Amino acid sequence: MTYKVDLNCDMGESFGAYTIGNDEEILKTITSANIACGFHAGDPTTMRKTVRMALEKNVAIGAHPGLQDLSGFGRREMAISTEETFDLVMYQIGALSAFVRAEGGRLQHVKPHGALYNMAAKSRELAESIAEAVYKVNPELMLFGLAGSELVKAGERMGLKVANEVFADRTYQSDGTLTPRREPNALITNHEAAIHQIVRMVKEGNVTATDGTVVAIKADTICIHGDGKTALEFAKVIPVALRSEGIEVQRIGKCVSPYNLKE
Amino acid sequence: MTYKVDLNCDMGESFGAYTIGNDEEILKTITSANIACGFHAGDPTTMRKTVRMALEKNVAIGAHPGLQDLSGFGRREMAISTEETFDLVMYQIGALSAFVRAEGGRLQHVKPHGALYNMAAKSRELAESIAEAVYKVNPELMLFGLAGSELVKAGERMGLKVANEVFADRTYQSDGTLTPRREPNALITNHEAAIHQIVRMVKEGNVTATDGTVVAIKADTICIHGDGKTALEFAKVIPVALRSEGIEVQRIGKCVSPYNLKE
Amino acid sequence: MTYKVDLNCDMGESFGAYTIGNDEEILKTITSANIACGFHAGDPTTMRKTVRMALEKNVAIGAHPGLQDLSGFGRREMAISTEETFDLVMYQIGALSAFVRAEGGRLQHVKPHGALYNMAAKSRELAESIAEAVYKVNPELMLFGLAGSELVKAGERMGLKVANEVFADRTYQSDGTLTPRREPNALITNHEAAIHQIVRMVKEGNVTATDGTVVAIKADTICIHGDGKTALEFAKVIPVALRSEGIEVQRIGKCVSPYNLKE
Amino acid sequence: MTYKVDLNCDMGESFGAYTIGNDEEILKTITSANIACGFHAGDPTTMRKTVRMALEKNVAIGAHPGLQDLSGFGRREMAISTEETFDLVMYQIGALSAFVRAEGGRLQHVKPHGALYNMAAKSRELAESIAEAVYKVNPELMLFGLAGSELVKAGERMGLKVANEVFADRTYQSDGTLTPRREPNALITNHEAAIHQIVRMVKEGNVTATDGTVVAIKADTICIHGDGKTALEFAKVIPVALRSEGIEVQRIGKCVSPYNLKE
Repeated sequence: MTYKVDLNCDMGESFGAYTIGNDEEILKTITSANIACGFHAGDPTTMRKTVRMALEKNVAIGAHPGLQDLSGFGRREMAISTEETFDLVMYQIGALSAFVRAEGGRLQHVKPHGALYNMAAKSRELAESIAEAVYKVNPELMLFGLAGSELVKAGERMGLKVANEVFADRTYQSDGTLTPRREPNALITNHEAAIHQIVRMVKEGNVTATDGTVVAIKADTICIHGDGKTALEFAKVIPVALRSEGIEVQRIGKCVSPYNLKE
Repeated sequence: MTYKVDLNCDMGESFGAYTIGNDEEILKTITSANIACGFHAGDPTTMRKTVRMALEKNVAIGAHPGLQDLSGFGRREMAISTEETFDLVMYQIGALSAFVRAEGGRLQHVKPHGALYNMAAKSRELAESIAEAVYKVNPELMLFGLAGSELVKAGERMGLKVANEVFADRTYQSDGTLTPRREPNALITNHEAAIHQIVRMVKEGNVTATDGTVVAIKADTICIHGDGKTALEFAKVIPVALRSEGIEVQRIGKCVSPYNLKE
Repeated sequence: MTYKVDLNCDMGESFGAYTIGNDEEILKTITSANIACGFHAGDPTTMRKTVRMALEKNVAIGAHPGLQDLSGFGRREMAISTEETFDLVMYQIGALSAFVRAEGGRLQHVKPHGALYNMAAKSRELAESIAEAVYKVNPELMLFGLAGSELVKAGERMGLKVANEVFADRTYQSDGTLTPRREPNALITNHEAAIHQIVRMVKEGNVTATDGTVVAIKADTICIHGDGKTALEFAKVIPVALRSEGIEVQRIGKCVSPYNLKE
Repeated sequence: MTYKVDLNCDMGESFGAYTIGNDEEILKTITSANIACGFHAGDPTTMRKTVRMALEKNVAIGAHPGLQDLSGFGRREMAISTEETFDLVMYQIGALSAFVRAEGGRLQHVKPHGALYNMAAKSRELAESIAEAVYKVNPELMLFGLAGSELVKAGERMGLKVANEVFADRTYQSDGTLTPRREPNALITNHEAAIHQIVRMVKEGNVTATDGTVVAIKADTICIHGDGKTALEFAKVIPVALRSEGIEVQRIGKCVSPYNLKE
């Protein structure tokens, strides 16, 4: 049997005179790029350049919509309505799609950012708003969400292809959710342990929670962090380690058209 | 011989808790709606609602991209580069396109807003950046610009369909440009004179400039203002007056697909 | 015995080309103006003009800091840290203070806006951050908060003068908090009943909650709404009705200096 | 005779998750810090932290107001009115002043940023708006502007203390203005030549323009750049080189009170 998994990373998060991330380097490692769309990070020029770089490196492109909170980098939860959620997701997918099309590419997926991702993992209503916005822009787009979360479920109910996202460097709780960052044991800093966790999630479909329980988990795509020197180095190690374990690293979707065009 | 002309109006310029314009009323009068895209005015929710209203009233939809200057309503010229111009136009067309598509419509045209419109009328470089952005999103989109301006010329060179825009309530100079607003004779406040001017532009293809010169002008679409009570009333009078002069009011483009789809 | 109460209203919430509120009219009625500071609403020019109008009408001026969420008008709760709260309150008070000083006035108070007001009513930590920011800008500033709330308590602990704010048109629950707007009986639409409620709060220091309980409440200042025609008319009725009940309407603070200057 | 000069640097230009500059390092070298105020760069938390760092290092603090153009870092000229200029400068000075006061410091000066600085160097009207805003916040504040520019002149007419700013790494034209950056000879990349230029400006009061003319120039303060490794290293060399030439490096103003308070 062959195992396969996708590697994704957030990028295009620079803004005007401000640079963040190691996009060029990380693009050599991953198979799916989640590109910021100008709300929590990113700007039109950064979007165009990041799209072009991803296409050159043959990495699949996803829209990475976030809350309209540049000063908080989209990481602060906000009490937005389902209507506002639908609209801000649709707006951001549309904006990125124009650059992808103009550069001759196809949008593969949508992955909400930061607080929007976390809120959509827990709230059925917000998750459904996001799934509906994605579907209405293009029903062939894939939706990335926390493995087993409300977002993934809402995407499936909507008829979207979904990707269950897992983390190498985070611990899990017995209900399958991530241990909150404020907890002392939230992070896995040992690289071997981190790789062991994702290998097992991909091959065996489970993970050992912080209380010792073995929890079933589906791992379609692994979230990679590329910001900071250690993260970048670890990001480069992951695909090598996965391949040595017989896991093929490849982009999750056939690169679907955002607008139903034939390739 | 039958004369035809398009009537267009800027709209969707409300923002969050702030309301501006009489969109619902003005949509009964015009044939082309230029919808703000969130930079100088508008927000995702306003965009969706305005797109829906325009489709219900069978009014053609255009993107109305502006400078990123909400506090100045996009009316203050900014020294942006051609690259920034290209990118901000593409971003905004993309964002609006998503709502148009999701609501089952087709984008007809692009008309830059305020200072961007004025800068593109005079600067060949900025005009070309805008025309190229429009073309790369979809070569079938129509470009609206000041009659005879650099923007219209750049659109034609790019191979885009263009619409020469004229004004009922503004006087013209001998070089075919509008008299700047700071001049005392910039505005035509007499409604009869205003209507006389547009009828003549449509039928005879010329206008009498402030210095008495007769200037050739092409009138494909007339800009209507709907903000304020007087403007709204005048807006309602215009199509009636045009028809009584044998001028048919109809949308300028076949409603072209933003993404080359068959209807 | 003489009864006294202050009347306050939020204002200066216009932004750029967008106008909101009836500031000029409402200033004839109230004794304390809460002026938006550019985060949830307002802009530098609006701030200067509103400060000037308030001084001309001899109305005391307060800073009305809000969340950095212009598109949501500061009404959507956001998960901001206590440090961020402290900093955004200090920033906004400082900005408004410059205009007040330049126009020859003195800042009297600070009243947080919308979601920030509501969050500070419930969260001791956020309330303390706000109180500390106010104190550090100027310990003589007065802090307005929901009567009996965490914000008022935090202000008192900090050594600030505080004003307990009550509402004419909202019902109260047995714990002294406002009935949430989503509840059917949240609003008092009958003007006589509304006036009866505030007269009793001022004179007797209590209010009948929705479940019939009589709850003690301190009424230092009454919040007036001036947006919309009905609200404006009711706003004009309130001071007349209060005076007819022997309640003097006067500004709550001696107009204290924001920077400890002698008058 | 003793020569004296001030060294200033722009700082506090980080924003949210975005970091820019080497503020901590550069503060060891300079005598005056121009701190961004949240319009072109900076945010409330960055402002507070930068103010605190400057006070700890005993560096004088100035407000560094810019255009409301975060995505352009305040470097793109905008057609703002004199009223808008006055208001945005006053707003930003006020905001920074609150942090300075809360931390126990005194504001020394105001230096406009980027495009606002350049526009105010050439436009008498904008220069006067800025000088008036500074004066009305506090007549004891010092105004920094390009040596000999309209801004410096407007400050003097207003009765403000002014500081003529010169550059080590830029060449001058025969009219005393900087050679525009687009010209090939705009920059002085040789460090010895750059130091020679400022030593001569301080000691002899003149500079050799690009066409060989000797131009009179007053050098009250030297602008230091700290962004990037080379710039930071050169910044450290400058004060050493100046002292070896018998030029004392010291803060230009007695640290005046922003609000007329006694120390």
